[in-house]
Amino acid sequence: MHDAGRLDIVYECIVTSLFLSHGLRRDVNFNAILNGPPNPPTHLRINGVDLYDVRTDIGTWQNILRKMLSGKTHPGVSTAKTSFESLLKEKAPHHSVYVLEEDGKPLDDSEIADNPLFILGDHVGLPKKTETFALRFGEKISLGKHPYLAASCITILNYTLDQREAKRRNSKLSYP
Amino acid sequence: MHDAGRLDIVYECIVTSLFLSHGLRRDVNFNAILNGPPNPPTHLRINGVDLYDVRTDIGTWQNILRKMLSGKTHPGVSTAKTSFESLLKEKAPHHSVYVLEEDGKPLDDSEIADNPLFILGDHVGLPKKTETFALRFGEKISLGKHPYLAASCITILNYTLDQREAKRRNSKLSYP
Repeated sequence: MHDAGRLDIVYECIVTSLFLSHGLRRDVNFNAILNGPPNPPTHLRINGVDLYDVRTDIGTWQNILRKMLSGKTHPGVSTAKTSFESLLKEKAPHHSVYVLEEDGKPLDDSEIADNPLFILGDHVGLPKKTETFALRFGEKISLGKHPYLAASCITILNYTLDQREAKRRNSKLSYP
Repeated sequence: MHDAGRLDIVYECIVTSLFLSHGLRRDVNFNAILNGPPNPPTHLRINGVDLYDVRTDIGTWQNILRKMLSGKTHPGVSTAKTSFESLLKEKAPHHSVYVLEEDGKPLDDSEIADNPLFILGDHVGLPKKTETFALRFGEKISLGKHPYLAASCITILNYTLDQREAKRRNSKLSYP
């Protein structure tokens, strides 16, 4: 996740990444690189395992980010001074990396490997240089011709992975 | 869409129903029945064809609802004093009605007819009586075992319909 100033988009992406209707996706980690002023880049990291005392409303996330930026803490949330490039270099060895782009391989036809890491741009897309860098570590996948909101892309990815997991489980049940 | 007081959920559902990243889904109509105080029910109706001067942030929608409730107007948005039951009776003859419930037929295995109308509850689900009423006009479909946020359900429905539409178009192109 790479953003150039629209914090409302970041909050929406946090919510669609981590929330179900009555609980959290404990197996999700959310990372955003905030490139806006005053002191970019800020790496915002949210760890589903430890997250606590949060809701889906934007106020919750505004408060948490304000706390973090003034040096306080919140369970499961941390910030660091890390660039997109450093973060990806650190993550890539432990993940299968996918970059969302309209001209990528259709998600429906793509195998998603275990422990995937998805890279999304904000509303203006990934800068070309960033995309080129990211593609050294992974491949392009596409959700089709519709330019979905970043938060919607995440919902679609979570849903698709949920469906595939459910099918795998059912087929194991049928043919033990 | 049926809600018992969480306006933030309604705003999120409006955004996921109607917005792509750089444009609006002109073929979507959004209806919410607001059953909160002071004067329920309020039927909030948003017509994608006429909608104008809107963004995805929650402030946009708070302002519009405030305008509407104080008797002003906004292009594509209207309110009325209509109950869920009256609204559904009026809509059902012109639509194929689907009620989202966990124990419904899986979306992946369901044909969605032209001009569909989807009914979703809020975070506590549809009241039993409302669900029973709705099922007189349509059938249950399911997005699986995960209890998604209402706004995420709408994203999943839009994405699924987009994918099916794209496949239909591609097959027409291949076998004219």
